[in-house]
Amino acid sequence: MQSEQPTEGLTEPTPSPSLPLREADFEDAIDRIDGAACEAWLDEADAREAVHALAALSDEQRVALLGMISAERAAEALDLLHVSQAIEALEDMTPEAVASIFEQMPSDDRADLIKSLDEKDAEAILTALDDEVEENVRRLAAYEEDSAGALMVSEFLAIPESATIRDVLANLETNAERYRNFNVQYTYVVDEAGKLRGVLPIRRLLLARRASSVLDAMIADPISVLDTMPNEDLQAVFKDYPFIGLPVISADGTLIGVVEQSDVVLAAAEEADSLYRQSQGIVGGEELRSMPLLLRSRRRLAWLSVNIVLNILAASVIAFHQDTLEAVIALAVFLPIISDMSGCSGNQAVAVSMRELTLGVTRPKDIARVLLKECSVGILNGVALGILIGTVAYFWKGNIYLSVVVGTALSLNTLLAVCIGGAVPLILKGFKTDPALASGPILTTITDMCGFLIVLTMASAMMANLTGL
Amino acid sequence: MQSEQPTEGLTEPTPSPSLPLREADFEDAIDRIDGAACEAWLDEADAREAVHALAALSDEQRVALLGMISAERAAEALDLLHVSQAIEALEDMTPEAVASIFEQMPSDDRADLIKSLDEKDAEAILTALDDEVEENVRRLAAYEEDSAGALMVSEFLAIPESATIRDVLANLETNAERYRNFNVQYTYVVDEAGKLRGVLPIRRLLLARRASSVLDAMIADPISVLDTMPNEDLQAVFKDYPFIGLPVISADGTLIGVVEQSDVVLAAAEEADSLYRQSQGIVGGEELRSMPLLLRSRRRLAWLSVNIVLNILAASVIAFHQDTLEAVIALAVFLPIISDMSGCSGNQAVAVSMRELTLGVTRPKDIARVLLKECSVGILNGVALGILIGTVAYFWKGNIYLSVVVGTALSLNTLLAVCIGGAVPLILKGFKTDPALASGPILTTITDMCGFLIVLTMASAMMANLTGL
Repeated sequence: MQSEQPTEGLTEPTPSPSLPLREADFEDAIDRIDGAACEAWLDEADAREAVHALAALSDEQRVALLGMISAERAAEALDLLHVSQAIEALEDMTPEAVASIFEQMPSDDRADLIKSLDEKDAEAILTALDDEVEENVRRLAAYEEDSAGALMVSEFLAIPESATIRDVLANLETNAERYRNFNVQYTYVVDEAGKLRGVLPIRRLLLARRASSVLDAMIADPISVLDTMPNEDLQAVFKDYPFIGLPVISADGTLIGVVEQSDVVLAAAEEADSLYRQSQGIVGGEELRSMPLLLRSRRRLAWLSVNIVLNILAASVIAFHQDTLEAVIALAVFLPIISDMSGCSGNQAVAVSMRELTLGVTRPKDIARVLLKECSVGILNGVALGILIGTVAYFWKGNIYLSVVVGTALSLNTLLAVCIGGAVPLILKGFKTDPALASGPILTTITDMCGFLIVLTMASAMMANLTGL
Repeated sequence: MQSEQPTEGLTEPTPSPSLPLREADFEDAIDRIDGAACEAWLDEADAREAVHALAALSDEQRVALLGMISAERAAEALDLLHVSQAIEALEDMTPEAVASIFEQMPSDDRADLIKSLDEKDAEAILTALDDEVEENVRRLAAYEEDSAGALMVSEFLAIPESATIRDVLANLETNAERYRNFNVQYTYVVDEAGKLRGVLPIRRLLLARRASSVLDAMIADPISVLDTMPNEDLQAVFKDYPFIGLPVISADGTLIGVVEQSDVVLAAAEEADSLYRQSQGIVGGEELRSMPLLLRSRRRLAWLSVNIVLNILAASVIAFHQDTLEAVIALAVFLPIISDMSGCSGNQAVAVSMRELTLGVTRPKDIARVLLKECSVGILNGVALGILIGTVAYFWKGNIYLSVVVGTALSLNTLLAVCIGGAVPLILKGFKTDPALASGPILTTITDMCGFLIVLTMASAMMANLTGL
């Protein structure tokens, strides 16, 4: 959540190691409603100190803080808060107070916040905004998450096609104050209807002959992206054309904003984080421990209850072979090992597939190649692990048949697990499903069932040599 | 791996949906050694098509391709290759051919590649480079990975402190050709010894009075970072000062490069990806399926063999209670469920801790708060899952004691798992260890042992009511 360049901050010295600030001082200042002291503390804190201190406040303290500091500082503080805590605070403030803070924020950030608020609160705040700002927020908030329209800023510098380079430079000098808060890397040449005609990077502006027309200096037919383009495509475009920003146009060619590479990369980093969280069972939204207990419990439980049902399904294989297990109780020691190790092997394959999909070196239709590659690793690692567990079993019980059963079962199941693990993400992706969410449970359920089945059917076939272990 | 802005690419039209290019055509062109056709194919392909086609080539084809296209195109192709495949290809080329490609690459990218090559190959290439480039590559390659020195580009625009704004603008106009390939957003004012005196963003240059001295127009005492600053600190600095790039200085204050925000964010995105991979057991380096079989097998096995030892350790708890299990064989069905579900609950807590550490809202010393927050979720979810599994057990065997044993065991173990899962990442981080790698195995080993122990000791205490199930 950042986009405009602060001009004031530039004059501050290089950050140097200093004594850590005391968070207690910050909280004291809030509790005695001393806005000036709060501003001073935040000024002195670096981003990391401020992030931790702001996150550690109670909801009431955050609301109080945002009310007692200037709208500009409040906008900066909101930027450092996690979106869930920012929303929590905004919901407890008056719409007018929020509106004055919103007017100090970059257009993309405030639109993100409006989208996360519940409808009633959002409407109240929108109504309290200036008409022009309100229209801007409504328009940006209407875009799909992570589309160019949602990621763009709507502050940009448009110049008429009739201007000369000298005109533009003179205009920049004259209106310096107005443009100071723009993040100007490119200027955009538009026709009378506001349609994008060309791009004039400011360095090209600097290097151009002063008397020439902007039409001659500009890059005509420039790369632009549609406001509806999803983040995945934006990343590919920035890979093709590694500019700092690209103009965003509406369907009729009107220039409506600028999407910056850093915002696209940040959105991609968020996706990578979310991939990790989903693989670990944090689904249905990110969790911070400051969120209400019941929300955290409910979200985690949603994932756990799906998993326990799948686990019971897998364990039912054991229940159906209870007589075999009763005769060879030693097998019960190996069942959890085989279940867990197959999960480990399979998850490695899932991780490689997910990564290759992200990098773009593998596509869903490459499944045959993936299976071939996983087979070879699966055979090698399966044999290695099988020999290991078989040896352990032999040293424990001195029965070679037990070794053969558990060793073979782990080998076969490792092979199966890496093939399933490698293939499932590609199949899910092929069906346009999010592979991060479902790959793990699908994998472990199948490998558990197969693992238990292999152990117990092999054991029942060799029963005569195993009974009593 | 990107940094300079192509100026030619700017004139291409907006990418529009077109027929997918045939990869077979590309491979044919390589096989008949038609460099012009290869260049044409790559020109027409967008980044995603090129990434997939380049990754799908054999090692020999990639070497052949890099040899038959211009050094400039080869540099672009290397940028689209995964670093492991790029290295593979460079090792099979003559040092002279690699040197001519390196001279077309941004300074940070070629330094990254040199670091990844084995020493002998790297030396041969370095010797084949121009002396000036060689010195540059050696200097950049000496930096720690992800430090400012490793992430910076050493191309920047320095201006002497005696110049006026008019001088600078005139110089830019005169030397336009020379600067065209620089990614100029800022110019830097240096003294005679090359020490950084100030920053002059080009938009400020544009807005300044032409007659004034650069000393008056520049931002004096600008934010700068030391070349040794690690990426984690760089991210914090960019959060404090969201500029596009920051000047990098050596210990004596000499300006030596510029580190761009987008490169820092990209490095952070790589870290998030690596967190996911490590949590899934891909350790010791990223894996692509195009890597040699034995390397892939060995790396995966390193992780699996640690896990199997830990698994055997945990399962030994079952072995020591074999008599209990023999008397109540139904318990064997529940052991894998309890093991897996505790792992799921614990991993959720690990993921929340990892995320809060990354965001900076939690620090190692906040462990008491984390334990408190996890306890409450653990009790709620533990009771819910315990009741569920207890009910299933009752419907299966009709024995309330069995329900009590497995239900209580799952409840207690869920509570334990979330506390351990929440705490372990903070503890590892406190000891400056990478929490992504070890948290999972530590968690599952402890929870497996405790889970098995709780089930089996409770069962042996209630043996009279369970025997024969």
